[in-house]
Amino acid sequence: MSYDHDNIFAKILREEIPCNKHDECDHTLAFFDITPQAQTHILVIPKGAYVDMADFSANASAEEQVAFIKAIGRAARLAGLDEGGYRIISNTGRDSHQEVPHLHMHILGGEPIGPLRAR
Amino acid sequence: MSYDHDNIFAKILREEIPCNKHDECDHTLAFFDITPQAQTHILVIPKGAYVDMADFSANASAEEQVAFIKAIGRAARLAGLDEGGYRIISNTGRDSHQEVPHLHMHILGGEPIGPLRAR
Repeated sequence: MSYDHDNIFAKILREEIPCNKHDECDHTLAFFDITPQAQTHILVIPKGAYVDMADFSANASAEEQVAFIKAIGRAARLAGLDEGGYRIISNTGRDSHQEVPHLHMHILGGEPIGPLRAR
Repeated sequence: MSYDHDNIFAKILREEIPCNKHDECDHTLAFFDITPQAQTHILVIPKGAYVDMADFSANASAEEQVAFIKAIGRAARLAGLDEGGYRIISNTGRDSHQEVPHLHMHILGGEPIGPLRAR
């Protein structure tokens, strides 16, 4: 899949549309999901144009990759999720039903999140 | 949560118990889950002793963090999941129902994986 610069997260990064910002660094942005699937539902995205984890893993710089890992932990901690715990989820492509073609890590917490997979 | 050196993944890393190995590098091991939740279900773990993503994000070296991101993408690609797609999931703590206290990233693919969260 090639990167579509008109995807909603690209527009959020360009500040063409607003988000409920949670945290930010040079390489990442974290904000609250507008259709939360849990009491706390945060999205962490790289600022670089990466479609998904396959793309990011293969093509992002070491600095961007470390920043992404750090940003996930920091976003959860800032949201007060460290004590209760949280699940992180990222979808790549068709079988995972990825909706926005810009890498994003969901952080779900604030309540028991249930089974790994709906059956 | 403190690290328990007797957890099952620590034993796999010490080769005290076997695993169905999929991929390996200096800092990571990937193997097939023994109770698969999808047609393809791979676990990617760091070789270092990290309880969960909170611990890994805060305490792993940059080299280990980059290796983990690379390993996730590589494991999925080697399993032939890049075309169809895949979901990655990692649980931290109680609310996510983390079962093994050694950081692991689930890779689920090979079929449509369904909703982000069971309801």
